[in-house]
Amino acid sequence: MRIILCGFGVVGQSLVKLFDSRSEDLYAKYGLKPRVVGVFDSKGSAVDSSGLDLQKLIEAKKKSGTVKNYSDTKNSMSGIEMLKHVEADILIETTASNYKDAEPGMSHITTAMKKGMHVISVNKGPLALAFPSLMELAVYNQVMFKFSGTVGGGTPILDYAKNSLSGERITSFAGILNGTTNYILSNMSTGLSFDSALKDAQSKGYVEADESLDLDGLDAAAKLVILANWVMGMKVTLPDIDCTGIRKVTTDDIKKADKNNCSVKLIASCDGKLVVGPKEISNDDPLCVNGTLNAIAFTSEHSGTQTIIGRGAGGIETASSILRDLLDIRQEIART
Amino acid sequence: MRIILCGFGVVGQSLVKLFDSRSEDLYAKYGLKPRVVGVFDSKGSAVDSSGLDLQKLIEAKKKSGTVKNYSDTKNSMSGIEMLKHVEADILIETTASNYKDAEPGMSHITTAMKKGMHVISVNKGPLALAFPSLMELAVYNQVMFKFSGTVGGGTPILDYAKNSLSGERITSFAGILNGTTNYILSNMSTGLSFDSALKDAQSKGYVEADESLDLDGLDAAAKLVILANWVMGMKVTLPDIDCTGIRKVTTDDIKKADKNNCSVKLIASCDGKLVVGPKEISNDDPLCVNGTLNAIAFTSEHSGTQTIIGRGAGGIETASSILRDLLDIRQEIART
Repeated sequence: MRIILCGFGVVGQSLVKLFDSRSEDLYAKYGLKPRVVGVFDSKGSAVDSSGLDLQKLIEAKKKSGTVKNYSDTKNSMSGIEMLKHVEADILIETTASNYKDAEPGMSHITTAMKKGMHVISVNKGPLALAFPSLMELAVYNQVMFKFSGTVGGGTPILDYAKNSLSGERITSFAGILNGTTNYILSNMSTGLSFDSALKDAQSKGYVEADESLDLDGLDAAAKLVILANWVMGMKVTLPDIDCTGIRKVTTDDIKKADKNNCSVKLIASCDGKLVVGPKEISNDDPLCVNGTLNAIAFTSEHSGTQTIIGRGAGGIETASSILRDLLDIRQEIART
Repeated sequence: MRIILCGFGVVGQSLVKLFDSRSEDLYAKYGLKPRVVGVFDSKGSAVDSSGLDLQKLIEAKKKSGTVKNYSDTKNSMSGIEMLKHVEADILIETTASNYKDAEPGMSHITTAMKKGMHVISVNKGPLALAFPSLMELAVYNQVMFKFSGTVGGGTPILDYAKNSLSGERITSFAGILNGTTNYILSNMSTGLSFDSALKDAQSKGYVEADESLDLDGLDAAAKLVILANWVMGMKVTLPDIDCTGIRKVTTDDIKKADKNNCSVKLIASCDGKLVVGPKEISNDDPLCVNGTLNAIAFTSEHSGTQTIIGRGAGGIETASSILRDLLDIRQEIART
């Protein structure tokens, strides 16, 4: 399968390493032979329609911070140009999430779909701003659109809700969907002030370059949009979320909660209304996880409430979710 | 789809009610029209090859404790006879788990498979004693064999591990797989003695008629066998499990654990060895759930540890897992 990879940060590099280290196993077990024919990062591109040398690609990126120097030609094709001119079967979109206009991810995805390419996105921007219309575009162009890695990183939350619970009606859900704010709130409960806890999280590399994405709840809200559309069949986008971040949470709030055997968590919930905001939840609730963990509780008609807990995003976790999507697409193609 | 239902206890009755209440929705959404052509309980049978009247069936059971009085003929066919003489597509096996010789479930399942029927079992006995050979028999007879409800009740643990984590390698797992013992241990941690906690659990109807199945860890061990075979590809049966129950756990053990911020839980684990036994685990571990909840933590190569928490078995939860299996079979048949 010929792949164009847009974005070559931590996730893209982890994915390429995964392809490289598991190539034999992927072919033997799943008949999957991923051939990366084009990679685009913010400074340039690398293209080879017979398949790029993955180790050489990693080295070029490591050496000069871009894939542009993969070959002597110093390719400076943009992502859009590459999608238009290089033949491929699948776009893997891993550029940074942007909640203003969702670019450049949005153009990458729509261009690929219009060319009849299947799309895997771990970029949440286009989904948060245009989930319903992107799904329509995929149906119209008869391509598959997968995005397992956008919620829960390596923890297959979307798949669980959709497939494992098939035949069941999910009536509501609530989750801790952003590991960074959960880490900060967990640390505040041990006595740290908001500012110290934020600094600690930053020093560990947990906070997005644009800290507002974490602290003002945008990342959690984007994930809530994706869940609401995918799991509940709603047709909503980011402006439909009532969203409050954690900047105003004080150590006093946390102490008060603690007296009731509760903790303050940034909860994204879908229960009639779509809300992201700080909320007291009982320490005995399985949802009440600490550190950078994510957790989500689905309440279903017949099977009660089921909670899934796992690590949130991380390079290798997200890469493994992309691989899962790729295997799904491979299987679906084999079937038809 | 023509169904023979063996066993008509809480689960069987919940399932029939589910069929009845969701018949329109199941047909519209999934093209599934379950037609129950035979039901067998310990006292007799009800058979109608054009489909039994589900409400009348429930009423007969309620009135006289058996389906034998469904019609005036007072059918006393055994399960085996029914499977041999009544044409059907699927056996749903819900008789009680028996870890000595797995009967009558074992004969029901093998008879059905040999006749070319697909099988859904929530009876753990045959799986615990003969998982590898039953899988072989299913393959040999080209029938599907499903058993989602045997582990986690309504919580789709088996499906999660197998499908949601496809492309991932699960390296180990550990879980609280028996809600009854977890309820007893949780109550002991509030100060109750083992005997009082057991009595309380019995008064709530949580304990199996043969209390040894819960207290000596047999139920958890049977589930461990199923997980080890299904998730890890091992070929093991009940005698391969190193199994200790909770009878020897004292309030002193629990107090000692509490001092280390730990709780004593009956843990079933697969990590090189297959063990069921009481173990101290940290209260901060997501696995550390209380009451009748079940929880399982899968550790995978790339996605870290993922914990799923949900209610264990219950009539309606287990019935919903059977429905899920039925939809899977329906879908698979439509495909081929």
